Amino acid sequence: MSDLKWTETEKKIASEAFQIAYEREIDSLIEEVHHKATTLAKLDDIWNLHDFLSARRHEIDGKYDFRDSGLIFVFARLVKEGWLNLDRLKGLDKDKLSKISALARM
Amino acid sequence: MSDLKWTETEKKIASEAFQIAYEREIDSLIEEVHHKATTLAKLDDIWNLHDFLSARRHEIDGKYDFRDSGLIFVFARLVKEGWLNLDRLKGLDKDKLSKISALARM
Repeated sequence: MSDLKWTETEKKIASEAFQIAYEREIDSLIEEVHHKATTLAKLDDIWNLHDFLSARRHEIDGKYDFRDSGLIFVFARLVKEGWLNLDRLKGLDKDKLSKISALARM
Repeated sequence: MSDLKWTETEKKIASEAFQIAYEREIDSLIEEVHHKATTLAKLDDIWNLHDFLSARRHEIDGKYDFRDSGLIFVFARLVKEGWLNLDRLKGLDKDKLSKISALARM
């Protein structure tokens, strides 16, 4: 799967879809942190927020990797997690789309 | 300084002062996080909050150590940082009080 070739058009589609998913996820994270912050009452709540941010940072840093070799997996994950609609990937060749779609349903 | 003996009365005074400083610092931290959370607008702000919490957690975990051997230093630091007023330590013997006071002014 890492040998798939991406045309310039596909790279552009992928890049835009990637950016959209990223922004949606970040917006959602910011909203979640806002909400969590309003409910902080004791030290445990603060450290729970810290643990939450540590986990999300690790996850987000690792997930948004735009190297060609892993893009199919990244997109499958983003679709599965709801950050990206498959429609945003229209224009990729059918083989890539069906791989992403199949992986996202796993 | 680690050989200082603490009477039962002194331990009680110390424990109460310790608790007061701890609660003041935690309340201040919670308030600061509330405030920071209202200003979160982008991902960098989130990670800055995460870095801030990492540093504060490390500092607070390390600072509030109630073993006799380090109490003079802990109290000096809490006085210096403004979490504890020396008056709260009234009842400790003069030697301890003057050590704490001297260290807090350094």
